[in-house]
Amino acid sequence: MEHRKLAVIVGAGPGLGRALARRFGAAEMNVALAARDLGRLENLSVECAGIGRGARAYACDASREPDVEGFFRQVRADFGDPDVVVYNAGAFVPRGILETTVEEFERCWRVGCLGGFLVGRAAARIMTERIAQGGPGGTILFTGATASLRGSAGFHNLAVGKFGLRALAQSMARELQPKGIHVAHVIIDGQIRPSAVVEHTDEARGDERLDPDAIAEAYFQLYRQPRSAWTQEMDLRPWVEKF
Amino acid sequence: MEHRKLAVIVGAGPGLGRALARRFGAAEMNVALAARDLGRLENLSVECAGIGRGARAYACDASREPDVEGFFRQVRADFGDPDVVVYNAGAFVPRGILETTVEEFERCWRVGCLGGFLVGRAAARIMTERIAQGGPGGTILFTGATASLRGSAGFHNLAVGKFGLRALAQSMARELQPKGIHVAHVIIDGQIRPSAVVEHTDEARGDERLDPDAIAEAYFQLYRQPRSAWTQEMDLRPWVEKF
Amino acid sequence: MEHRKLAVIVGAGPGLGRALARRFGAAEMNVALAARDLGRLENLSVECAGIGRGARAYACDASREPDVEGFFRQVRADFGDPDVVVYNAGAFVPRGILETTVEEFERCWRVGCLGGFLVGRAAARIMTERIAQGGPGGTILFTGATASLRGSAGFHNLAVGKFGLRALAQSMARELQPKGIHVAHVIIDGQIRPSAVVEHTDEARGDERLDPDAIAEAYFQLYRQPRSAWTQEMDLRPWVEKF
Amino acid sequence: MEHRKLAVIVGAGPGLGRALARRFGAAEMNVALAARDLGRLENLSVECAGIGRGARAYACDASREPDVEGFFRQVRADFGDPDVVVYNAGAFVPRGILETTVEEFERCWRVGCLGGFLVGRAAARIMTERIAQGGPGGTILFTGATASLRGSAGFHNLAVGKFGLRALAQSMARELQPKGIHVAHVIIDGQIRPSAVVEHTDEARGDERLDPDAIAEAYFQLYRQPRSAWTQEMDLRPWVEKF
Repeated sequence: MEHRKLAVIVGAGPGLGRALARRFGAAEMNVALAARDLGRLENLSVECAGIGRGARAYACDASREPDVEGFFRQVRADFGDPDVVVYNAGAFVPRGILETTVEEFERCWRVGCLGGFLVGRAAARIMTERIAQGGPGGTILFTGATASLRGSAGFHNLAVGKFGLRALAQSMARELQPKGIHVAHVIIDGQIRPSAVVEHTDEARGDERLDPDAIAEAYFQLYRQPRSAWTQEMDLRPWVEKF
Repeated sequence: MEHRKLAVIVGAGPGLGRALARRFGAAEMNVALAARDLGRLENLSVECAGIGRGARAYACDASREPDVEGFFRQVRADFGDPDVVVYNAGAFVPRGILETTVEEFERCWRVGCLGGFLVGRAAARIMTERIAQGGPGGTILFTGATASLRGSAGFHNLAVGKFGLRALAQSMARELQPKGIHVAHVIIDGQIRPSAVVEHTDEARGDERLDPDAIAEAYFQLYRQPRSAWTQEMDLRPWVEKF
Repeated sequence: MEHRKLAVIVGAGPGLGRALARRFGAAEMNVALAARDLGRLENLSVECAGIGRGARAYACDASREPDVEGFFRQVRADFGDPDVVVYNAGAFVPRGILETTVEEFERCWRVGCLGGFLVGRAAARIMTERIAQGGPGGTILFTGATASLRGSAGFHNLAVGKFGLRALAQSMARELQPKGIHVAHVIIDGQIRPSAVVEHTDEARGDERLDPDAIAEAYFQLYRQPRSAWTQEMDLRPWVEKF
Repeated sequence: MEHRKLAVIVGAGPGLGRALARRFGAAEMNVALAARDLGRLENLSVECAGIGRGARAYACDASREPDVEGFFRQVRADFGDPDVVVYNAGAFVPRGILETTVEEFERCWRVGCLGGFLVGRAAARIMTERIAQGGPGGTILFTGATASLRGSAGFHNLAVGKFGLRALAQSMARELQPKGIHVAHVIIDGQIRPSAVVEHTDEARGDERLDPDAIAEAYFQLYRQPRSAWTQEMDLRPWVEKF
């Protein structure tokens, strides 16, 4: 497995997470996938078998520092240093402000934003170290949403974390890009549909919702950008989406 | 003390907090000031004596739910329902991303954003209840900063909380304004200078930094806006400030 | 008329224009109103008589340089230098992109943005000159709209001018504020209702649309801001407005 | 030349314009390049010879309706309907507000924004017609700048046009995307360096300024996006750029 590049994907749900794994795997890269949910993890392991020898699924609660630190330690032992790290986790409890509990409010932020900090910091530390030793830089990608730009009624639990994640991505980009680490934030505006490759249902067809493979292609293109022209933020939405 | 309106100010630092207290006090309103820091609290109590019989200082850690709930219970017992509630607390540890500890990152968010949720929710509950009983609405004001709009290098600890607070203010405005509760967010862009009324130093003069009394006047004007023309967001900066 | 301050209002429609005239007139200021439409002009002249001796209406097509230059020359001869100048004109032809003529597109921009440049430049020249002679600064206010922040389908004719006016206001603020001239941009988000003072109809009541007198009060407060805490941008919308 | 796709590039300067031509040409597409400047046109014609038989340069002042209409008529006669149209023209006179002439202000807008309307409308008309006949949709790309998002001191001549072009792009996207036409706006934040392919100077090397070929690659990827995941806006800047 020497000499292969490594993609690390944290928050690997049924849609975008595995589409990313397939896309980076298709580019002859190793792929490390992290999920909190053990049920998802099992599916991911099956998925990884399909991608090839260089794909592996790990259990990791991204909102807990020891989990994240342990995950990156294990991944480095298994595959070496990551070349691209994607933070893709999120949590949302739709709720009016009067009924929101402090536990809900905090948990959504821990998954939506604190996890992004823990993963982003771990990635930045490894990449900075590698650059200091004369190695290449790296790419850190954060997944945003409509709620990254707009706090709608009933969406504060999502928007507080997503606004925070965008703040983190901007601060990290301004600090790390001049050191050679690309930090980008992708605003996914719309529903992601089940992947056509995996699901054989009617709703996996049609293009009125976001195709996870199309999103994964956009992430891959961000990873490939030469440093003379880096994107810090872009949006993605279906052609029929109101915005 | 019957029939006087009530202003509640949470996060009453040496500058803006007491200027707000003076401004609302000058309009014949009762004023309840909350601070976490006992030293500040003592100064505030002295200050309150100067404002008149209807001003009182309370100890409250705005990032802790029991404190906030207890504070509002006590204030209602002392003065009745609030007409305007200002959330003005903040915390910032300037730090590079590699060196930031999870404790710093989390604490800054708890003071900068979670406290805003706890105070805003408590205010919204009281105001909603009063409206349901045929009473008047109310005003909730959040204090933002340059970092509410821009994540700068080394500022993620501040920006994550301030972006989040702005998300909260937007969501609350969209949910609560149609019910009669005005929710506004003020972006303070620049340094606040010591208050000329209290400090007799040279640096309290000049207008190249924000005069806390000028900011307090802007907050008071927001409170006075009729509901046919409510401001959701405005900025304030000194004439010489780069932006 | 010596020693009275002067407010200049360009683009004085039936709603906001005359509410502004009344508000500044109520503060013992002289008021110069400019309108292109002769019918409006006549009404404004009647209105001016109601405000008092220091109010006068002028014909001026704000999108034509000779008109604007001549208007300011005449106003200075009549009243002296302006202390506050408001640009309030706008034009909009709702239209799909395929059907829009170049004449429509251009005319909307000339009224919505080029006029703002001509009026803003004239105001800035007079105010800069006065500051150079040791006199006070001044205030320049631009009226924006929902379309200042968002290009909606069918609204390009409005949005192109309003985005442009916002760009102008920002550039002027950054250039002129350090010289002592306050430049602010107000986003009016919603329908303005007929003025209750003038119209005695049912639709002039209620607060579900913007009351022009409430808007005028907000403009007046901007004019009164001390330079240690200037607002560059604020929004105004009715409590029931979706946004 | 039947069956080849067509890229139309308006405002083909020495940097980005010809890099776009090369990139689309490399994908076996025909390329029509428009420039106002006859000197540039000659260079473009030489360039086109290098790209192959399906590239041609045309004289066109994009701010004049008859030129734009005539240009598209000629291009359709030569190559058929465009699949992607890029508007890339701009003009800027740096100037303080007091010294700016109305001619400068207007000319910058005519090149920066009115030309975008004329080209965008012509493209939208052709593409809409083709869709109505059961044909494929198309892509319209607008080139923005730092000044699309921020009006800086001395930059109003640029920012007014660039803000306006962004308003146009947003309005067109919201109107045309549900009809199958992709409209995107790219914010180029930084200096574009001379193309390494053409210029053999030292300053064509290094990646501290934007490589026009890297930008062209990003435009090409936008063109290739499937309609389930379209980008409306993205930025591009060199790794060392302050922002």
